[in-house]
Amino acid sequence: MNVALKNKHKVLVINAGSSSIKYSLIEITQQDAITSGSIENIGETENSSTNFANHEQALQYIFSELKKSALINNENELLCIGHRVVHGGEYFQQPAIINAEVIKNIRETIMLAPLHNPANLLGIELAMKQFNTVVQVAVFDTAFHQTLPAHAYHYAVPKAWYEQHGVRRYGFHGTSHFYVAKKAAKYLRKPLKNLNIISLHLGNGASITAIEKGKSVDTSMGMTPLEGLMMGSRCGDIDPALHFYLTKTQKLSLFEIETALNKHSGLKGICGENDMRAVRKLAESGDKNAQLALDMYIYRIKKYLGAYFATLGHVDAIVFTGGIGENDTKLREQCCCNLGALGITVNDSKNNSGELNYSNSDCLEISDKNKAVAVLVIKTNEELEIALQSAACLDHEN
Amino acid sequence: MNVALKNKHKVLVINAGSSSIKYSLIEITQQDAITSGSIENIGETENSSTNFANHEQALQYIFSELKKSALINNENELLCIGHRVVHGGEYFQQPAIINAEVIKNIRETIMLAPLHNPANLLGIELAMKQFNTVVQVAVFDTAFHQTLPAHAYHYAVPKAWYEQHGVRRYGFHGTSHFYVAKKAAKYLRKPLKNLNIISLHLGNGASITAIEKGKSVDTSMGMTPLEGLMMGSRCGDIDPALHFYLTKTQKLSLFEIETALNKHSGLKGICGENDMRAVRKLAESGDKNAQLALDMYIYRIKKYLGAYFATLGHVDAIVFTGGIGENDTKLREQCCCNLGALGITVNDSKNNSGELNYSNSDCLEISDKNKAVAVLVIKTNEELEIALQSAACLDHEN
Repeated sequence: MNVALKNKHKVLVINAGSSSIKYSLIEITQQDAITSGSIENIGETENSSTNFANHEQALQYIFSELKKSALINNENELLCIGHRVVHGGEYFQQPAIINAEVIKNIRETIMLAPLHNPANLLGIELAMKQFNTVVQVAVFDTAFHQTLPAHAYHYAVPKAWYEQHGVRRYGFHGTSHFYVAKKAAKYLRKPLKNLNIISLHLGNGASITAIEKGKSVDTSMGMTPLEGLMMGSRCGDIDPALHFYLTKTQKLSLFEIETALNKHSGLKGICGENDMRAVRKLAESGDKNAQLALDMYIYRIKKYLGAYFATLGHVDAIVFTGGIGENDTKLREQCCCNLGALGITVNDSKNNSGELNYSNSDCLEISDKNKAVAVLVIKTNEELEIALQSAACLDHEN
Repeated sequence: MNVALKNKHKVLVINAGSSSIKYSLIEITQQDAITSGSIENIGETENSSTNFANHEQALQYIFSELKKSALINNENELLCIGHRVVHGGEYFQQPAIINAEVIKNIRETIMLAPLHNPANLLGIELAMKQFNTVVQVAVFDTAFHQTLPAHAYHYAVPKAWYEQHGVRRYGFHGTSHFYVAKKAAKYLRKPLKNLNIISLHLGNGASITAIEKGKSVDTSMGMTPLEGLMMGSRCGDIDPALHFYLTKTQKLSLFEIETALNKHSGLKGICGENDMRAVRKLAESGDKNAQLALDMYIYRIKKYLGAYFATLGHVDAIVFTGGIGENDTKLREQCCCNLGALGITVNDSKNNSGELNYSNSDCLEISDKNKAVAVLVIKTNEELEIALQSAACLDHEN
């Protein structure tokens, strides 16, 4: 790192979604957030007088607050700004310092992520305007999965769809899967490149990744984040002929089906609630649909655990992360239940030992020490990972 | 069985497809086919002068040939006629003696199998006309899978789609999966109800079933035969958002997508050939797309093997059947490769020992005797199973 950069320890992380902006100011030496926050419901001004009309106003507000609170006095204090970008297509295997070429490639990927990439780009462009002397870096959700082998990323569809239209498995949540894999390696005191790991990111969106010798070799989300596990309101895996059936017999439009599969499916589709805590509460009160939703959610995770065990042949660790993975004790036990033949067991007392012990690599081991597969709970931190990768990207360049 | 039926040993099995009719005359005591055959390309009269214009002409020809050859002299010789019916919806957990109610229910299921059930029904109606004193029985591809638990048969989509429109996993190839499971139990000298089996029916269509204590608890084909494994020309599992992407960005119609996913996908979509023997030959000659198609085909089987291993917790046997499963020696080895941690191994010399040894329960064991999981190759016989089930159905009634 050159001398000028050495004195800069702050990285601002921007995650601009379609109707929200999350930000985090990270002290890179301490690997800690100085401050963070989010603005939701952007553009939905009718809901509340405090809402912002557009992304520009929201971001300007964030910047002015950061300056007001003296957390950023001067843009020279910023090492860089790291932007979360959802889809990097096949362009990006790594984070990239933003220039005209990078912006062009993110723009060309909009087709694949029409809801996310335009908002991510807007965040980048607004931040460049506000902080025009600060280096901006794009960190991609898809990048970690660019190591998938061809037999795992191809769909069995006409090959021209891949060659001409980019139809393939890309995978998402890459920043989180990579972050917890590194944490797991640190906890196990082994180099990541020697480890086979199955990581489960279970939040409102959910995905599971097979990591072989430190590299992603398969992941449950596909060309879009709709495929794979059952999620809060997304369907995950279904019969691909369902669309034809519903348009023919129920006269549903493709738009209605798309909305239903993205917003009214998953846990919500089965029991009306998309938050796992609410689903659990309902199930405990005797609601049969909630119990079914829970059973389906767990069963699908189990099937992927088995599938990726077969992919890897040997598994060193399973990692639970994301809001549900970190906090739903019972779910972790249920997902690993009856998998003893795979060397996977959960120790009840360890699993119920409560909060993560952050002093210990942010990692809670819930399997017995002598078991073939270490089952771990690790708190994810995508903002920190984006900051670290952005800073590392500068290092690389200088 | 009543006395009158006791002297009847012949069952005629009819499998009427959309453009073909297969038939088989089975000697039920010997469990052997007296004769069998098929008529293809029905309705495609422009192709050849020997083709039949419609199902009625084709079936009449079959009946007249059977009578001419003195194999059926008189309809009194027939114990019953067994009809393959692809989709029984949730109506049929068992074969059913055909009456007005059964026909009504098969007709109500046409929505779910618009290509198959109408042809199956036509076969039934024509056979009833020709042999109006013979009992007709419907045997359903879906029936064996009606034991799936709710968490396995529900999709994570709006629950009303199940309740109002029958959207769920039904599964297919049930007759074949059940037949080979029974054969495996016989070979292992254990009651089927004590066995956990994963059966792979790998033909031009392909499906894999998890059988727990003799009952189907999960299967890869879903509401339709399009879901699951990669097939000759069908896609199997894909991202359910692919349809939206292709209609939006490529302006494909839903009909074009449906045709592509059913007829131009699978092995054919990747390398242009839908027959595994041709794909192997191409791959051996150095064709990269054929090698990719092969790798994908095997990888997807492996993932399902792992998934269903997790479903079952303990597996007694894996059964390969269907044209590819019975004959592609190398594929069996490749599907089981690197699964030693699951107790699954293939003994090369046993696997390469050539033709099935039909004297020995029609079963070739290709794993080592002492292995946790018996890996078996069993020749399927759907026609015989339909005949046996049809006959058993009469027994039940009388």
